[in-house]
Amino acid sequence: MTQKLLLAYSGGLDTSVILKWLISKGYEVTAFIADVGQDEDFKQAKAKALAIGAKEVIIADCKEEFVSDYIIPALQTGALYENRYLLGTSLARPLIAKKMADYALTHNIKYLAHGATGKGNDQIRFELVFLQFIPDVTIIAPWKEAEFLEKFTGRTDLLNYAKDNNIPVTSTLAKPYSIDENLMHTSYEAGILEDPELTPPDDMYKKTLSPMEAPDEMLTLTIEFNKGIPLKVTDHNNKQTIEHNLLAIFSYLNEVGGKNAIGRIDIVESRFVGMKSRGIYETPGGTILHKAYQDLETMVLDREVILLRAINAPKIGQLIYNGFWFSPEMQMLMQANQVSQKSINGSVKLGLYKGNVIILGRNSPNSLYDHDIASMDKLGNYDQTDAKGFIKLNALRLKPQKFIN
Amino acid sequence: MTQKLLLAYSGGLDTSVILKWLISKGYEVTAFIADVGQDEDFKQAKAKALAIGAKEVIIADCKEEFVSDYIIPALQTGALYENRYLLGTSLARPLIAKKMADYALTHNIKYLAHGATGKGNDQIRFELVFLQFIPDVTIIAPWKEAEFLEKFTGRTDLLNYAKDNNIPVTSTLAKPYSIDENLMHTSYEAGILEDPELTPPDDMYKKTLSPMEAPDEMLTLTIEFNKGIPLKVTDHNNKQTIEHNLLAIFSYLNEVGGKNAIGRIDIVESRFVGMKSRGIYETPGGTILHKAYQDLETMVLDREVILLRAINAPKIGQLIYNGFWFSPEMQMLMQANQVSQKSINGSVKLGLYKGNVIILGRNSPNSLYDHDIASMDKLGNYDQTDAKGFIKLNALRLKPQKFIN
Amino acid sequence: MTQKLLLAYSGGLDTSVILKWLISKGYEVTAFIADVGQDEDFKQAKAKALAIGAKEVIIADCKEEFVSDYIIPALQTGALYENRYLLGTSLARPLIAKKMADYALTHNIKYLAHGATGKGNDQIRFELVFLQFIPDVTIIAPWKEAEFLEKFTGRTDLLNYAKDNNIPVTSTLAKPYSIDENLMHTSYEAGILEDPELTPPDDMYKKTLSPMEAPDEMLTLTIEFNKGIPLKVTDHNNKQTIEHNLLAIFSYLNEVGGKNAIGRIDIVESRFVGMKSRGIYETPGGTILHKAYQDLETMVLDREVILLRAINAPKIGQLIYNGFWFSPEMQMLMQANQVSQKSINGSVKLGLYKGNVIILGRNSPNSLYDHDIASMDKLGNYDQTDAKGFIKLNALRLKPQKFIN
Amino acid sequence: MTQKLLLAYSGGLDTSVILKWLISKGYEVTAFIADVGQDEDFKQAKAKALAIGAKEVIIADCKEEFVSDYIIPALQTGALYENRYLLGTSLARPLIAKKMADYALTHNIKYLAHGATGKGNDQIRFELVFLQFIPDVTIIAPWKEAEFLEKFTGRTDLLNYAKDNNIPVTSTLAKPYSIDENLMHTSYEAGILEDPELTPPDDMYKKTLSPMEAPDEMLTLTIEFNKGIPLKVTDHNNKQTIEHNLLAIFSYLNEVGGKNAIGRIDIVESRFVGMKSRGIYETPGGTILHKAYQDLETMVLDREVILLRAINAPKIGQLIYNGFWFSPEMQMLMQANQVSQKSINGSVKLGLYKGNVIILGRNSPNSLYDHDIASMDKLGNYDQTDAKGFIKLNALRLKPQKFIN
Repeated sequence: MTQKLLLAYSGGLDTSVILKWLISKGYEVTAFIADVGQDEDFKQAKAKALAIGAKEVIIADCKEEFVSDYIIPALQTGALYENRYLLGTSLARPLIAKKMADYALTHNIKYLAHGATGKGNDQIRFELVFLQFIPDVTIIAPWKEAEFLEKFTGRTDLLNYAKDNNIPVTSTLAKPYSIDENLMHTSYEAGILEDPELTPPDDMYKKTLSPMEAPDEMLTLTIEFNKGIPLKVTDHNNKQTIEHNLLAIFSYLNEVGGKNAIGRIDIVESRFVGMKSRGIYETPGGTILHKAYQDLETMVLDREVILLRAINAPKIGQLIYNGFWFSPEMQMLMQANQVSQKSINGSVKLGLYKGNVIILGRNSPNSLYDHDIASMDKLGNYDQTDAKGFIKLNALRLKPQKFIN
Repeated sequence: MTQKLLLAYSGGLDTSVILKWLISKGYEVTAFIADVGQDEDFKQAKAKALAIGAKEVIIADCKEEFVSDYIIPALQTGALYENRYLLGTSLARPLIAKKMADYALTHNIKYLAHGATGKGNDQIRFELVFLQFIPDVTIIAPWKEAEFLEKFTGRTDLLNYAKDNNIPVTSTLAKPYSIDENLMHTSYEAGILEDPELTPPDDMYKKTLSPMEAPDEMLTLTIEFNKGIPLKVTDHNNKQTIEHNLLAIFSYLNEVGGKNAIGRIDIVESRFVGMKSRGIYETPGGTILHKAYQDLETMVLDREVILLRAINAPKIGQLIYNGFWFSPEMQMLMQANQVSQKSINGSVKLGLYKGNVIILGRNSPNSLYDHDIASMDKLGNYDQTDAKGFIKLNALRLKPQKFIN
Repeated sequence: MTQKLLLAYSGGLDTSVILKWLISKGYEVTAFIADVGQDEDFKQAKAKALAIGAKEVIIADCKEEFVSDYIIPALQTGALYENRYLLGTSLARPLIAKKMADYALTHNIKYLAHGATGKGNDQIRFELVFLQFIPDVTIIAPWKEAEFLEKFTGRTDLLNYAKDNNIPVTSTLAKPYSIDENLMHTSYEAGILEDPELTPPDDMYKKTLSPMEAPDEMLTLTIEFNKGIPLKVTDHNNKQTIEHNLLAIFSYLNEVGGKNAIGRIDIVESRFVGMKSRGIYETPGGTILHKAYQDLETMVLDREVILLRAINAPKIGQLIYNGFWFSPEMQMLMQANQVSQKSINGSVKLGLYKGNVIILGRNSPNSLYDHDIASMDKLGNYDQTDAKGFIKLNALRLKPQKFIN
Repeated sequence: MTQKLLLAYSGGLDTSVILKWLISKGYEVTAFIADVGQDEDFKQAKAKALAIGAKEVIIADCKEEFVSDYIIPALQTGALYENRYLLGTSLARPLIAKKMADYALTHNIKYLAHGATGKGNDQIRFELVFLQFIPDVTIIAPWKEAEFLEKFTGRTDLLNYAKDNNIPVTSTLAKPYSIDENLMHTSYEAGILEDPELTPPDDMYKKTLSPMEAPDEMLTLTIEFNKGIPLKVTDHNNKQTIEHNLLAIFSYLNEVGGKNAIGRIDIVESRFVGMKSRGIYETPGGTILHKAYQDLETMVLDREVILLRAINAPKIGQLIYNGFWFSPEMQMLMQANQVSQKSINGSVKLGLYKGNVIILGRNSPNSLYDHDIASMDKLGNYDQTDAKGFIKLNALRLKPQKFIN
């Protein structure tokens, strides 16, 4: 009996070969293309998949959901992986996998396939979601199948197989590194980048100019937040305002961030499978928002809430990176964070200039900043002598310390 | 009987008035000037204190110790206060206070005084150390004494008192904000900066040029580390090399960092006494090192060590900020961090350009990066099928979740 | 003008003297008696306060709210202070203080007083709540007022003052330690207990028999939970069932727990004001529930949720102990915990025997225990070979460790 | 060529069959018997292995090292797995595995085998250590090998194979559960215990009497610690003293703990492979020490150190349970804990009575308990009015909270 299979399809060489190979193995393949904002001709990709023999091709526009349910909630936590990475790919994968799982459940598909390799993180992010949400799923990951691995030992084998099977190959010349792209970021790894001493070539970057190429004039923006969600961006240079549409807001921040060289990082990171790898990421809009959140948060959140969030953030970052977006511990951590978001209201004014996000000022109806109390010139209902007792009792436990050396 | 008193003296208007006032109260005052790298004419300050009536003036050169025992250990932890502040003032205070406590213990002085206000953090950082290390200490903090507060209600009273008592006043015109400076940073707060919407004036900054003023050419550096300590800086532009002298290395990074606009932040922060305040900080050399450590660490440290360190860092940042440098919990956290430093060897190459610290490459004998295993082109003794079982067992606990929804 | 003042009144010697003293100072005092389950004749206490001169006496029955909104939520977190103390007094204080704050706000009272000393924790628990919720509150804590402290240097002064002012004194002979009591626990401290080597006298305990005095027969109970809340207790010895009334359930557990010697601890603990003190606590019902929650939780909660909760618990314990029940960080931690409670359904069967709570079995509709998968005799849809890859990839990051010397 | 193989051998049915099977596969097998305090006739086990065909049999007495380098360091952290389990088996496995790895490295053995199943935790604890310390190791875990699993589908197959191969079988009748035993604990799981509602049979327990069977008289002990290590135990009932020999001390505590019914738990726990299982543990000596450490610690450690340790403990517990004893993150956590141990000096007096460990008093030269300051009857150099300022400034951040809705 022919088994129905759902394949995460990108339109590229790898998943096109995999599509053909799966069909050759007897599966009835539905190709699932998730539009998470990558630079792709989806019509052409669909045509290609159908030409190769896909039974059906689904193009799912996930961009709005990606921003509202994945990118923004993650940015609200302040999570970074290994202190720097804003998790662009890590956030897109559970979304795509969940969309596929939902489709598979609705269409009674039990076989799911993807083109991720056995060394990377994406396989985990896909498969954990498939395994969690689809009872009795069988996962076909050709890059972990002995037969496939033997047949395809390098790019040449893929190209030959494509040629033999009339699979159209768009790029005759492959980039000397691999790219993953979505609305949040573009990432680069592998190939020449596998040497951690090598500075990436300037012409690699797709989303951002370099600081050297960026304009000589600072771009000034105001970003307004409502309960933790960006509501409006005002561009003070061109007097433009983007509001009420989160996707439009995020896309605008990407555009101006990219022009002003915001959000590039180069990092040797730790994959969940246990090895180190080197990645280059450019996250222009996400970086601007990350900085804006940081600035607003310390004005409206209590210091102990700030501390708790900062302690939770690295754990959240690791969970997202490792593929545990839908895990119960993630749910617990996100719930805790949600409590803090209701007071994230107000606006941050910032300048973008050659790679810098420069905070220019901020304002919030929930500000805990009390000018009179903070002021060094006024008493503001603050009794300075209270500090005496405060310090003496804080010192009390330190006094008898025989602990130190 | 005349009581001996040790005063933290800066040479400025406040502590000069305090010095005179303490003498008028009958104390025999030793003025303690700590050189932590601030821009100050120490000879002149000493002469001034003696002229006012100090029994003795101690100038303690603390710069080497400040770098080696405070700045570098703090940078090794990755600690930031409220996600951004590198803790320049917070690190200098316990050093000064400890030096004073040591002097007081040696010279049998039981009265210690400082000029910090009752609203700020510095009073705590001073007094916790005095209280912890000097048995039976009496702390005189005039800005928390009713009599002093009544006598001096503003700057005019201080100036009049100075005039009446022949205390020389250097600056006739006060800055519209207050400044604290040391080797690690210059900080600005109070006055006009008390409006969190106000962008600080361009001419305020002492240690850094703005990104707009910085050179058009990138400066390329290589920083070498040995067991977590910067050993050598190579400036590839002028072919200069600074090595083996931590103070010289740090000062050089300050210099080139400042020229290239590195390390400015503007933050509304939470003071330990319970209020929010707004601070502007410029930490050029510290920022460069912070980024260099971050880069090297993810290559040589295990991912779970990286996570633990990232979870500890916000707590360490709060402890330093709040004045608990010498607390037992700080000792415990620093000890844990020390374990990780022995593998922080190698070098980071980076570019400084108009506010950006751009990572260009890195290298370490302790690198956990294994090219063959990481490579997407080689198997490198890695069996891709292992990932199947790895993922399936990681998913096992997620499958039966009735937790979600 | 006569100022209205609200006094936390217990009916005992201290607060009776304070009541009189406050009246003598010209305040119009309302005495506030919170019934949190202490063994007290409230009618008599009311009559006494009125006789002393209180303008009004409020008796607030807080027992139901104490169980449902304080005791149970705390037990749901698993929080213990310093690994052992179930926080009986710490939980009652914010309730009492909040009730008083609400009353003060409604009746436009700006002066609040309590009889807690300046060395203890209770002053903090009261005052933090007063200060947080009542704008422009003035707190009168006589045990921190110089005048009061001078007048009353010991118990004899209090007794003399009582005699002189016709304040009836019930107990002629004071216990050689002080007692605090409520529905959750009875605590003992001070006096002879200030010697940490002294074993407390057997006749001290009010809520529990000692293990030596307890019955020779085990009492068997089943406790049923619904969304984290105890719904029903079945006593298998006397076939009695208590259900749907949380206060009745908790009281029953107190009764049978007390009879069977459950829940005594003796601990040297750290007060928030900076000193160590020694406390003895007996928490029979709370201890039974704590053990029952622990048992059910590991069956129905995911292991990473269990870990997160266990990491949060000590922090929650410290916050409760220190008086931060209504702080924003507490709210964040409690919100995170709430996520886990919806699956705390099912029942735990346990035996009470001479100080032991012996788990006899458990059952839950949300159990994550899967007999077939767990079984060593069945495969249960588990592929043992998956473990190979799981372990190999978990080991991968450990292999190249140059970390270990 | 014949390959040398090192097998973790217990003398029981499973590993005897595995030994024979490995020999039949052509390996030259050295049987490694680790004496970690289990109740076993090691001579007989050796003879049996040789009779089956082992090339060599190593009996490694690991008891002293087990106590000093595994049990005590773990108890010093206060770590429990899932709030209750003292980790007896989890601590023995890395010791055994490390001893085997050392032997293998010395004797150039590349093949290591064990008899743990593919569903449990022990396979991980063995294999992580083998993989970390032995380059190019090949692990043979028959219970995860298809061929072996097909051949041996149940106990009957093992018994038949034993009979066919002249393998002596000691117990004709198997227990209806499986047992693991060492110096620290005896554990019971599987078989009839796989029903989490079933109360374990009374005759199951090997190390402890039940509370009902225990003596009617309390046994009083004093345990003395030096830098965190138990130095001396005084039995006040029989006036016996055990000192200077950690193994003797621990064994004595096991003996008296067992007699007095100390240290039984029954828990549904989370295995690292992703499933829940049910285990019964009895840890008499470990439980007594755990309680003694807890008691002494809160008297000699600073409250923030206590909090940090309590936050780290659950993570340490999970790492030990999951097999990461030799991981770098474990090393970091243990190093932090070590800082606290130098002040763990003094003695704890406690009573053992029918399952209870009753704290009777404690004493330490490092006590932070200051009678005069703690006393409610004395001022002890404590100014009660300091508490006013302390509380007011602690409340300051709470006052403007718009956070609470």
